[in-house]
Amino acid sequence: MTALHGANPLRDAADRRLPRIAGPSGLVIFGVTGDLSRKKLMPAVYDLANRGLLPPGFSLIGFARREWQDQDFAEVVHDAVKEYARTPFREEVWQQLAQGMRFVQGTFDEDASFETLKATMEELDKEQGTGGNFAFYLSVPPKFFPKVVQQLKKHGLADAPEGSWRRAVIEKPFGHDLASARELNEIVHEVFAPDQVFRIDHYLGKETVQNILALRFANTMFEPLWNRSYVDHVQITMAEDIGIGGRAGYYDGIGAARDVIQNHLLQLMALTAMEEPASFEADALVAEKAKVLGAVRLPDDLGEDTVRAQYSAGWQGGEKAVGYLEEEGINPRSTTDTYAAVKLKVDNRRWAGVPFYLRTGKRLGRRVTEIAVVFQRAPHSPFDTTTTEELGHNALVIRVQPDEGVTVRFGSKVPGTSMEVRDVSMDFAYGESFTESSPEAYERLILDVLLGDANLFPRTEEVEMSWRILDPIEQYWDTHGKPAQYPAGSWGPKEADEMLARDGRSWRRP
Amino acid sequence: MTALHGANPLRDAADRRLPRIAGPSGLVIFGVTGDLSRKKLMPAVYDLANRGLLPPGFSLIGFARREWQDQDFAEVVHDAVKEYARTPFREEVWQQLAQGMRFVQGTFDEDASFETLKATMEELDKEQGTGGNFAFYLSVPPKFFPKVVQQLKKHGLADAPEGSWRRAVIEKPFGHDLASARELNEIVHEVFAPDQVFRIDHYLGKETVQNILALRFANTMFEPLWNRSYVDHVQITMAEDIGIGGRAGYYDGIGAARDVIQNHLLQLMALTAMEEPASFEADALVAEKAKVLGAVRLPDDLGEDTVRAQYSAGWQGGEKAVGYLEEEGINPRSTTDTYAAVKLKVDNRRWAGVPFYLRTGKRLGRRVTEIAVVFQRAPHSPFDTTTTEELGHNALVIRVQPDEGVTVRFGSKVPGTSMEVRDVSMDFAYGESFTESSPEAYERLILDVLLGDANLFPRTEEVEMSWRILDPIEQYWDTHGKPAQYPAGSWGPKEADEMLARDGRSWRRP
Repeated sequence: MTALHGANPLRDAADRRLPRIAGPSGLVIFGVTGDLSRKKLMPAVYDLANRGLLPPGFSLIGFARREWQDQDFAEVVHDAVKEYARTPFREEVWQQLAQGMRFVQGTFDEDASFETLKATMEELDKEQGTGGNFAFYLSVPPKFFPKVVQQLKKHGLADAPEGSWRRAVIEKPFGHDLASARELNEIVHEVFAPDQVFRIDHYLGKETVQNILALRFANTMFEPLWNRSYVDHVQITMAEDIGIGGRAGYYDGIGAARDVIQNHLLQLMALTAMEEPASFEADALVAEKAKVLGAVRLPDDLGEDTVRAQYSAGWQGGEKAVGYLEEEGINPRSTTDTYAAVKLKVDNRRWAGVPFYLRTGKRLGRRVTEIAVVFQRAPHSPFDTTTTEELGHNALVIRVQPDEGVTVRFGSKVPGTSMEVRDVSMDFAYGESFTESSPEAYERLILDVLLGDANLFPRTEEVEMSWRILDPIEQYWDTHGKPAQYPAGSWGPKEADEMLARDGRSWRRP
Repeated sequence: MTALHGANPLRDAADRRLPRIAGPSGLVIFGVTGDLSRKKLMPAVYDLANRGLLPPGFSLIGFARREWQDQDFAEVVHDAVKEYARTPFREEVWQQLAQGMRFVQGTFDEDASFETLKATMEELDKEQGTGGNFAFYLSVPPKFFPKVVQQLKKHGLADAPEGSWRRAVIEKPFGHDLASARELNEIVHEVFAPDQVFRIDHYLGKETVQNILALRFANTMFEPLWNRSYVDHVQITMAEDIGIGGRAGYYDGIGAARDVIQNHLLQLMALTAMEEPASFEADALVAEKAKVLGAVRLPDDLGEDTVRAQYSAGWQGGEKAVGYLEEEGINPRSTTDTYAAVKLKVDNRRWAGVPFYLRTGKRLGRRVTEIAVVFQRAPHSPFDTTTTEELGHNALVIRVQPDEGVTVRFGSKVPGTSMEVRDVSMDFAYGESFTESSPEAYERLILDVLLGDANLFPRTEEVEMSWRILDPIEQYWDTHGKPAQYPAGSWGPKEADEMLARDGRSWRRP
């Protein structure tokens, strides 16, 4: 086995089963006092350390306005880890991690703060051996992006010293339409080269999403069926049971289509529809995803084949829920969509004629994300017609969350003395089949940033292509009437059911 | 719904979901004192009655040498039902059934006995309304077949009165080679027309076997993969954990290949490999099965690609088991095979180049019957080679018994931060998916006899074609050395493992 531990043993392409361990590095979080940082980023860093995937001298720098000392910051991280980490708390892991924690007090306008940041990074290079390798996590609203990246540039922080790296991590929204996305991309890329920028779509960090590619390309059984000859249509659903919660300020004016379809659902669709990539490297993957997004065509009639809606008052989980327009902080005349469904076509040889139905919404029946590949009915049945007329379509359902796994739905003979066939399911459940615990999406994504593995991060062109798909729909909605309604706790507006019924299909009740 | 209850409502092809209920009829069992009759036939008749699938006047005639009265016979049936029936005992069902029970004392040589039988049948026609419709179940050793059928002919019992039917049910063995099978068929068909003869292969009555056709032809997902483009090979296994038990007299000189491969395994193979039948009627099914059996080719080298063996002493289920040659009643120089494995080819467009490996044996690791369709490896993997090198073949396994169901084996991403893929399974279990209880194979088959549905019964030509496949193998074995050995409780002789290893394959451990 020693042969495997060569120059860079842990990144040796000859054995990826060795744990991928980050080399010397540090992470700088801007907006470290926010929810995302506390609930996701800090616990993910600890979990990675606990799994032994971070280098011994790994360093974490918090940057915020608060009047904290390093010790205060470490305490905040400590509490966040205790509350949100997935792996057990181990004092020795914590102690080692805490040694590399620093806090830089300041605002994005102050040059002095960035000079302090610079000094802190250099100090960590000496004390912790971070080797000049730092990732900047912009966990801040997009309006601050320009300032932060400009400051990083101005103070020489974006430029890596010889033999080291600097990377920028940004969170959605990547704009609210094509124009604003382009503007944002220009600002970021003035400072960081494309391969330095990591856009987080946390869905892509989920095991089940990565498993789409394993399912399709590591097996023989599925790919032969994965095309217009056998697939009737594809349904991609992301349903939330919650309302907008405390996100009114962000959500109103954005809506479900921009918040979910533009990024998560179009990415899931691209992974489902794409051709086999030449390799599993980022460039090859992006090329295939971009081919799908570039082949997406909107329906001819946007009035018939798109639906947006708002939840009205209803019942959910045994409790009364107010309608969207009654939510605190929402303009009672808002036309923002809390539900959106669209029918897309993919204009290529594999998918011609196969509709992809994408839907997302808040206050739906339950929280579930799934991709359902629904096959055509058997072209002919030698059995009596009536015994099989109730037979549904075969389907392969990738359950992204919760209950992660795969379900195959097919017809089986009903026990008894006649040849009656009825739909049954077979399930593969992630949780039951593997003893390995799934890393949280942010764990995976932060590790990938530190390793420089970009294959789970959407690129500039994907972001812009996705907006190019969504923009005409949003423009149509802006100029055509008002959103439909659906009661909180239901499965969406009747208009969405009618949209599929016109095609002779119906939504799955997941 | 009344419209469905027309002239023959329960056999109306327009709605087979209505229970298929036998019309007026009776069953005559020759050899009614035997084990099969007591453990399978009597309980099956009761269960059918209990499920409401027999007509009110259904009659059961036992024919044997014993000095029994009707009442004695009814008591024997009563005890057998209490001990072996699958459905709960209900006094009112029993009482109605008992009204139609008669016993005819006699031997097959006595003309008087058959005259009594004739009189009894006519009496039942009057008292019970059996309408002249009778099935004769020959639950007797094959050496008695000629006598019984000749007597039936001689006394006019084989000829149905106008508007009624007479049928003969026979159990395997249907000969011990092609010549003897032909001879037997000639004897039977001198008296009964082909459509009057029902040969019992109780495997074909099993739900999971019938489900092979439902799986393949009521679904879209499987049939596109079901050919040489995707299938690497097929393994059909029937393993028993028991030894020969009390069957020494029958078994020695017959062996595993004649006892199991000639009928059960070749039938399973035919159902797995056949083209879609034009309908689910007997003629259409037989035509397709016969096409497969006619396309079967033996391996070029019978020494390399067939294996026979005898179990030697070993351990099974924590108990010591003696070797076959030490079993009571077995000639210590016997060369009878208790294990047989053969590699067959199917010479047609769908299966060219795809080997079918059939194996059966006594005293194997556990009792299991399954059909495993093993797919080729993915033709290419975009993932690192080493992460997928341990990946097995995808497989679809039809679990015939026990744990009836379907298993699909495929590769899935292992949770974690690298793209490691590992084989997992998804299962469909009959018992969990249906609340309907499975009828016992004999229930289904007896009902089919009464209904005249012949599609689960092998025809003359299938029996003869199967012997045509087996005869050269048996002849080769007779003239080439002695059987190999395997310890009781193991999974067969090393020669069988070597046979697959030469093809770069291995047997599944079911």
